[in-house]
Amino acid sequence: MIIDLRSDTVTKPSKGMLEAMMQAKVGDDVFREDETVNLLERRLADMFGKEQALFFPSGTMANQTAIKLHTNPGDQVICDKYAHIYNYESGGASFNSGVSCKLLDENNGMFSAVDVEKAINPDAYYYSKTSLVEIENTANRRGGSCWDLSEIKKIKKVCDKHKLGFHLDGARVWNALVAKNETPKQYGNVFHTISVCLSKGLGCPVGSVLIGDAKIMENAIRIRKIFGGNMRQAGYLAAAGLYALDNNVERLKEDHKKAKEIGAELSKLSIIKAIEPIETNIVIFELNEDVDEKAFFQKLANKNVMVISMGGNKLRMVTHMDYTDAMHEKFIQTVKNLII
Amino acid sequence: MIIDLRSDTVTKPSKGMLEAMMQAKVGDDVFREDETVNLLERRLADMFGKEQALFFPSGTMANQTAIKLHTNPGDQVICDKYAHIYNYESGGASFNSGVSCKLLDENNGMFSAVDVEKAINPDAYYYSKTSLVEIENTANRRGGSCWDLSEIKKIKKVCDKHKLGFHLDGARVWNALVAKNETPKQYGNVFHTISVCLSKGLGCPVGSVLIGDAKIMENAIRIRKIFGGNMRQAGYLAAAGLYALDNNVERLKEDHKKAKEIGAELSKLSIIKAIEPIETNIVIFELNEDVDEKAFFQKLANKNVMVISMGGNKLRMVTHMDYTDAMHEKFIQTVKNLII
Amino acid sequence: MIIDLRSDTVTKPSKGMLEAMMQAKVGDDVFREDETVNLLERRLADMFGKEQALFFPSGTMANQTAIKLHTNPGDQVICDKYAHIYNYESGGASFNSGVSCKLLDENNGMFSAVDVEKAINPDAYYYSKTSLVEIENTANRRGGSCWDLSEIKKIKKVCDKHKLGFHLDGARVWNALVAKNETPKQYGNVFHTISVCLSKGLGCPVGSVLIGDAKIMENAIRIRKIFGGNMRQAGYLAAAGLYALDNNVERLKEDHKKAKEIGAELSKLSIIKAIEPIETNIVIFELNEDVDEKAFFQKLANKNVMVISMGGNKLRMVTHMDYTDAMHEKFIQTVKNLII
Amino acid sequence: MIIDLRSDTVTKPSKGMLEAMMQAKVGDDVFREDETVNLLERRLADMFGKEQALFFPSGTMANQTAIKLHTNPGDQVICDKYAHIYNYESGGASFNSGVSCKLLDENNGMFSAVDVEKAINPDAYYYSKTSLVEIENTANRRGGSCWDLSEIKKIKKVCDKHKLGFHLDGARVWNALVAKNETPKQYGNVFHTISVCLSKGLGCPVGSVLIGDAKIMENAIRIRKIFGGNMRQAGYLAAAGLYALDNNVERLKEDHKKAKEIGAELSKLSIIKAIEPIETNIVIFELNEDVDEKAFFQKLANKNVMVISMGGNKLRMVTHMDYTDAMHEKFIQTVKNLII
Repeated sequence: MIIDLRSDTVTKPSKGMLEAMMQAKVGDDVFREDETVNLLERRLADMFGKEQALFFPSGTMANQTAIKLHTNPGDQVICDKYAHIYNYESGGASFNSGVSCKLLDENNGMFSAVDVEKAINPDAYYYSKTSLVEIENTANRRGGSCWDLSEIKKIKKVCDKHKLGFHLDGARVWNALVAKNETPKQYGNVFHTISVCLSKGLGCPVGSVLIGDAKIMENAIRIRKIFGGNMRQAGYLAAAGLYALDNNVERLKEDHKKAKEIGAELSKLSIIKAIEPIETNIVIFELNEDVDEKAFFQKLANKNVMVISMGGNKLRMVTHMDYTDAMHEKFIQTVKNLII
Repeated sequence: MIIDLRSDTVTKPSKGMLEAMMQAKVGDDVFREDETVNLLERRLADMFGKEQALFFPSGTMANQTAIKLHTNPGDQVICDKYAHIYNYESGGASFNSGVSCKLLDENNGMFSAVDVEKAINPDAYYYSKTSLVEIENTANRRGGSCWDLSEIKKIKKVCDKHKLGFHLDGARVWNALVAKNETPKQYGNVFHTISVCLSKGLGCPVGSVLIGDAKIMENAIRIRKIFGGNMRQAGYLAAAGLYALDNNVERLKEDHKKAKEIGAELSKLSIIKAIEPIETNIVIFELNEDVDEKAFFQKLANKNVMVISMGGNKLRMVTHMDYTDAMHEKFIQTVKNLII
Repeated sequence: MIIDLRSDTVTKPSKGMLEAMMQAKVGDDVFREDETVNLLERRLADMFGKEQALFFPSGTMANQTAIKLHTNPGDQVICDKYAHIYNYESGGASFNSGVSCKLLDENNGMFSAVDVEKAINPDAYYYSKTSLVEIENTANRRGGSCWDLSEIKKIKKVCDKHKLGFHLDGARVWNALVAKNETPKQYGNVFHTISVCLSKGLGCPVGSVLIGDAKIMENAIRIRKIFGGNMRQAGYLAAAGLYALDNNVERLKEDHKKAKEIGAELSKLSIIKAIEPIETNIVIFELNEDVDEKAFFQKLANKNVMVISMGGNKLRMVTHMDYTDAMHEKFIQTVKNLII
Repeated sequence: MIIDLRSDTVTKPSKGMLEAMMQAKVGDDVFREDETVNLLERRLADMFGKEQALFFPSGTMANQTAIKLHTNPGDQVICDKYAHIYNYESGGASFNSGVSCKLLDENNGMFSAVDVEKAINPDAYYYSKTSLVEIENTANRRGGSCWDLSEIKKIKKVCDKHKLGFHLDGARVWNALVAKNETPKQYGNVFHTISVCLSKGLGCPVGSVLIGDAKIMENAIRIRKIFGGNMRQAGYLAAAGLYALDNNVERLKEDHKKAKEIGAELSKLSIIKAIEPIETNIVIFELNEDVDEKAFFQKLANKNVMVISMGGNKLRMVTHMDYTDAMHEKFIQTVKNLII
């Protein structure tokens, strides 16, 4: 039994999801004739209270498209120092949209409306033009922590005042919604665009969806085509998404519970210096200086436990649908017995 | 019974293909752990005698990546006036790679090595730098016609002499191989990169593969990530590709036969001015000036036959796997009885 | 005495111009405090009946800025096959703005409003979006020929109908104005942006100016800064421009007269196959097939006459301010005695 | 008498410089025939011990060209948080080259080789590829401070080890050379490319020069053309540069002396919280929290003294060639009598 805690992206479709995929009614989505894709897009747009939604082969492409929709080349995007769009999309924001990022490093990634307003460039031609604010919820590199909706609303006011776009990278938005007991429409009310991931916690094999009102989304399909994200009979993938919305959202609570239990157990270990507060399904912890990260990593590997190194003696574990109760029980025992 | 001849992209997976998809062993391809994807990439690289292959969500992305691999911003690509990369990829070559196209309009799209050499810009800093030659085989807008391999080899010599990249847009390369009785390795020998489509004639729901040697492919995975083409459990799509390579290549001859039979029948109609020579599965024909294209189009639609208008009183029909014998028989009868 | 007919760009400032330059009142134009620059910009804006003007170090940068102001990445520009922006700006339109060109080859470069309307891409997401029409007046590679203002007005109507920008590359607009006896305001009325060159016929050492209304020009200063075209005490260059507007516009008629006289003389030579109609200061002629271009070129060089080869046995001569009456007399004699 | 201490860019050519300009031998630099430009380029290349140099209309363009020469779209540049290329070039690095910046905020801008090595991204396709390190010497926003050559050499070793380019933004390199008593060749030995400004301290009206070896400079002229920086008779500007190299380098010591004297005087004022160490010609100081920046600014303006606000109660003064002894004497008196 291999316990893979590297990421919630490693899940494979359940039997039910696979059957839903197999029975999907498909068509050529380049002609917009794939009814399952259309159904998924309609459903997500409605859920978030927006006019339109568009299916993408990846969250990266949904985010990259959003950045392009909100900016012109030379513009600047305000985001967290650890934002996925700056760090893990291969420099795509500059490649695809010709924009730079103004990175904030405030309040463990949960920057405030005041921070945003300070980060807007002065209105002079030799500065880059600030045109977009982006947040990630939950914030992956900040330990899966959740934003406070009231602060998000304040940021929206700053965006409105300065005519900035406001985009949510919702790679793990379902975890945030479940953890905070909030509704998609509450998010739809405040962001101009939202990318939501169907893989990760929801367990689909492939796919993200970008959601927004008609005006901002008008060019989304063209940008998707330019990137080459326009697939043919994509309904097989969309069917998994519809299944996941029906079956896999509420169960994220189990992942969060397990993550907290892992955290509680880790906190008892003397070799661990600190654990970031666990709000959802991500556990980030730091080893003591005298503990060799590679040795620790290997020790886990020897017990068939896979985690991810984040550098600086930090490690990350992510719970997910394929991390079963049996695995959890075994892993908790493993942690209890961890001696370096 | 709807007879959809708009494109060979409208096909849906057969029962056998769908079963192959659902039994696929998958993994997270972002970690390169999807064994079905890996298998398909390996198989296609070997088929074409190249070192590497990479799976893409679309042929557009495979082509756009190839263009980026061969060029720097400001460079120029030599291609046919009707090339897909210039006409139907939303301006992506300029958006993604910052390149322009030098369009040739020679010999019904089958330009010669001499034409290529003439089209290379002089070596002066105020000209755009020519760095890539691209051909499409079969050539869609040229009626699905096939390139002559001996001319392709001559063009390769010009590319080598001037240090230009040479890319094949193989959206319908399987049709060309079958029609000309040529082998993938013959193509692999001459092009630096080849994109092959698994949708269209092969009947897969989604997917194209870019093939090339290791050096040129080194950055392909990074470019794919930048565009957002990096999918997770993509093995479901790759499995369709493997099935198609086993089962759907040789049968393209049937599509070609049907296309020729349609052409033969159309040629008897007085309302038709000209039919482009039919080598594969595409039938392009021009109506007489006195025939109203829209009325003709509607007449076909009334008989549940869907075709595509190409402008200028020209129409296109494409035969494919889901255009059955029964449909063919019926459609031939329909053509026989066409009176405007 | 070297007779340099390669281009009208080779002129050097006259004594009067140099004195005007030396006495210029300058300031730091990055702070917009160079009063001579401001004066030149104001004067040209007023001349063409537009709200704003901006000084540039080159016509290429003025054009590249205009293209950027009118387009978004992925868009398409309609222009003549021999347009400077496509052929002689190093691929800048694709590099800087991410756009492609739809090249027309109609009516010796003087395409019609009907041609433009046909060249606009259909409104579908897989086409590049047409957003700009550009013409060059006079048209360099078309032999310095002048556009017909009534056709320009018709093109403007097409632009308005389809919401396209309309830019004039006025590298030699002064020649056109003088030759056709038209006024700058007539041009200002019809184009959204106009680049005018102060070098070439006007004899300044450096500089072009982009002219347009406030809305379209709003971002011009930012784009100029991005390219690095924001100079400090540029008033020395602007002073030459002001001098030229006072002194060097009307005299272009002399250049035109000389060009026509050269053409008349060339037309008597049996070694010459064809001469393009001469409307302004450019003479393009084609040698007979049996005449070796290089030998002819060398023969002229031996007589201290410098011209430019355009390929295909074609040569170009351009008359200008520094091509004096004495040179002209001598060169006409040279032509009379030309025997190959 | 207006005392303009906003920047050293406000200087106007001296009489001697103006005469040198007006006597310049010029030609069409697009044909590379401007002998004064050629002379200046040759001289600077030799001074810095490099093979080539190229004249630019601005330091921004010289820097933007260097960035393009060292990077591919999607790459990342390591530089100081206050680097000119990130902050004051209108987002040009992302617009022109499609790159992002990794900003360091170490040791008052003088980051170490160790900092650089830590800032290089891991070699995985989902990270941006680090390809260039850039430093500014003197560092404008760091108070005109000078880099330590021995640390620069260590950074070079890191660059070599990781195959990174190493560019010097030499906007005020002459101040650094004079202040540290170092030679251009010492800098030429360690950087791949260097931009040097002829305006600012040297007093020219316009111009910067990019210096590097032939291989890296090969494409510089093409990039300059793409940006539109290719001027015609640029010799008038280059002549000022040659004059400045002969006459205006050593005298920078006077500017430095004056800046230090201003600093000494300011340090006596109780209203001033801190003054950054003054190594060259820039004085940056911070007012006490209870002093209103705008009132202080206005007080100076009332006395005909112009300075620049940097935000956060900080102000900047820059001494230069046109800040005369008489002005200095008067300004020192003004400072002495400053009461808020």
